[in-house]
Amino acid sequence: MSEGANGSKVARIGLLGRGTVGSAFAELIAQRGSAVEATAGRRPEISGVLRRSEGDFEEILAGSDLIVELIGGIEPARGYMLAAIAAGKPVVTANKQLIAQHGDELFAAAREAGVQLRFEAAVAGAIPIIRVVQESLGALEIERISGIVNGTTNFILSEMAATGADYEEVLARAQELGYAEADPTEDVNGADAAAKMAILARLAFDTPVSLGNVSFEGIEEIRPDDIAYASELGLSLKLLGVAERHGDAISARVFPCFLYGGHPLAPVEGPFNAITVEAPSITEITMSGPGAGGIETASAVLGDVVSILAGDAPVHQPGEPLNIRRDLDSSFYLHLEVADRPGVLASIAEVLGRNGLSVKSVVQRGLGDEARLVMILHRAAEASFYAAVDEIAGLEFMRAAPRAIRVIEKEYV
Amino acid sequence: MSEGANGSKVARIGLLGRGTVGSAFAELIAQRGSAVEATAGRRPEISGVLRRSEGDFEEILAGSDLIVELIGGIEPARGYMLAAIAAGKPVVTANKQLIAQHGDELFAAAREAGVQLRFEAAVAGAIPIIRVVQESLGALEIERISGIVNGTTNFILSEMAATGADYEEVLARAQELGYAEADPTEDVNGADAAAKMAILARLAFDTPVSLGNVSFEGIEEIRPDDIAYASELGLSLKLLGVAERHGDAISARVFPCFLYGGHPLAPVEGPFNAITVEAPSITEITMSGPGAGGIETASAVLGDVVSILAGDAPVHQPGEPLNIRRDLDSSFYLHLEVADRPGVLASIAEVLGRNGLSVKSVVQRGLGDEARLVMILHRAAEASFYAAVDEIAGLEFMRAAPRAIRVIEKEYV
Repeated sequence: MSEGANGSKVARIGLLGRGTVGSAFAELIAQRGSAVEATAGRRPEISGVLRRSEGDFEEILAGSDLIVELIGGIEPARGYMLAAIAAGKPVVTANKQLIAQHGDELFAAAREAGVQLRFEAAVAGAIPIIRVVQESLGALEIERISGIVNGTTNFILSEMAATGADYEEVLARAQELGYAEADPTEDVNGADAAAKMAILARLAFDTPVSLGNVSFEGIEEIRPDDIAYASELGLSLKLLGVAERHGDAISARVFPCFLYGGHPLAPVEGPFNAITVEAPSITEITMSGPGAGGIETASAVLGDVVSILAGDAPVHQPGEPLNIRRDLDSSFYLHLEVADRPGVLASIAEVLGRNGLSVKSVVQRGLGDEARLVMILHRAAEASFYAAVDEIAGLEFMRAAPRAIRVIEKEYV
Repeated sequence: MSEGANGSKVARIGLLGRGTVGSAFAELIAQRGSAVEATAGRRPEISGVLRRSEGDFEEILAGSDLIVELIGGIEPARGYMLAAIAAGKPVVTANKQLIAQHGDELFAAAREAGVQLRFEAAVAGAIPIIRVVQESLGALEIERISGIVNGTTNFILSEMAATGADYEEVLARAQELGYAEADPTEDVNGADAAAKMAILARLAFDTPVSLGNVSFEGIEEIRPDDIAYASELGLSLKLLGVAERHGDAISARVFPCFLYGGHPLAPVEGPFNAITVEAPSITEITMSGPGAGGIETASAVLGDVVSILAGDAPVHQPGEPLNIRRDLDSSFYLHLEVADRPGVLASIAEVLGRNGLSVKSVVQRGLGDEARLVMILHRAAEASFYAAVDEIAGLEFMRAAPRAIRVIEKEYV
């Protein structure tokens, strides 16, 4: 660390990337530098900025005490981070894809070099879930983390529920309002949430988890009448990330699901994020706040910078690899459009029964010469459920492809 | 730190007090010692326990690397903590009264000795609010912290709302269920919440705040019909702690209040705690979880132990003392029992108007020859409101003492 002009100790920050988050971060550093100095003993100053068109990485690295990586994407961000770590410089990043896909390599490099690698901003914007899972709850046996970790999809689902409008219409509105990007693919198909759940599962279960270990489904197929049925049943529809411990194995998944009204994540509306952590000794803790806007993400980055200036902390070191389970049990909502004639319900019930599935509730509605069957099934092996749905899809009286959405009921949590 | 029998590095913990929390902590240490070692590099072991009837403090101190204080109360806990700090031993405590009343002395001693003093368990059980305010949000300008920080009173108010039963009946039930102590005074009169708000205000605003700076009111006077009226108006009744910044001054208070339905703390029911932190760059973050049971508190203590083993961190250092404002503006609910005859409402309206108070809504109900007037008043200086209420109380048509409860409406937050 070097001496500033006024004699105070300065921490020189090399800033990689100056988009929305980078600009908000530079502004926060200017506003809150004295507050950081009061807390951490050193005043952070930006000593160099690397943009696509400007700046030399080697020069910025040599002139900085720590690196803040806000470029995003895999390369060149990965190369820069490894170089910074090798040079003994602590790194703060908001790059969820990099941590989710190359976490093991980066953590190993940071441990070897003995430098901190912090990434609070990679998950859930300003909600300090990384620190809470890693530090506050770090010694507890976490059983499950459930999260609404993508603000775009939560906004879309909330709007669909509030207005009855269909997916495409609400997506267009979200894009106008800046809640969805021009290319929303990674958000709406669940991939963005999956990267965040990979990071949370790794920290919660102290085991290597990468993006490929997280199965994900998106919200592109959700129709307004699914949400209307959910609402009739007192359930709300959310895109949920769930990482769970199953004895010696774990699972990590992202899927749209119906959530019972009393679930701590059920009231989370609009572009908000929220995460519930369950462990025997704490029951559950829920944290909620705005999703990852520029200023919220920059605030999380600043928190990490303060932590680095304030003192040492161990780098994440995963324990034994745990098996990733994909053969899980779930409860499902099943929506079937069928010909309205006698025997149809009996045929469907026969297929379900033969696959070991039992029906919790069923509503049938006539629509001219068609009928709609909406069922909630009791918890059972997902493989059995999908086998039954495949079989039902082939029955001659079916008028459309079956639609299935998981249900999280009270007993599950 | 010393070598354990198996060659692993051991952190010797001197445990002061072995009541509910102390026993739960000892059990957690036994269960989670290896997990802590994996994270922090050292295995915590309890090297000595001080009970009322057993153990010698000096001996325990000499044989330990850090001290966990779970005795509670002011003395001898304060003397033990100062002695431990002077001996260069880090201290973890769950003692809210000690931090709220003697924080400045303890923090100064810890800074001078260069040892950590951690107290996550002092506020909101397992919810890691201290760490989040001090570290994650440490560099931000926090504007307001609002919290339900006493589980006993939240349980009582939730039960009163759910059952319509009166305060004494629900308090007795809470005592049976273990949610209220045999002597519930400190919980129900707001003093316990005030100690927690003193700690949160100190950390949020980086200024010395002690218990005497926090004004508090309790829930002893709440009647079932207040809650019924609130519910009719779409409001819920909570005992809230609020610490706010007002330019160069701050305020910290605890009071029962009606909360609008969309407030992040409105859905918090039963013996739960929840805290909302507001700052310009994060909008708001809310954290919720179970209140301070033995195991939840022990989990928070363990988190602090892990942090101490994992690395250094600066001790809280307050900045300039800020003025404590008590002359605040609020919106109020006002409940008046009056003789049912012409001119009564006009007389009351005249008093309110003369004191600069305007009525937002009023409901009048006849009850034989009496009537009940329930009003919600617009935000105004509390001093004006109380002056008006004093005057109204003296009017000859009043049939009972006026009842007033603050209202937190949407525009307030």
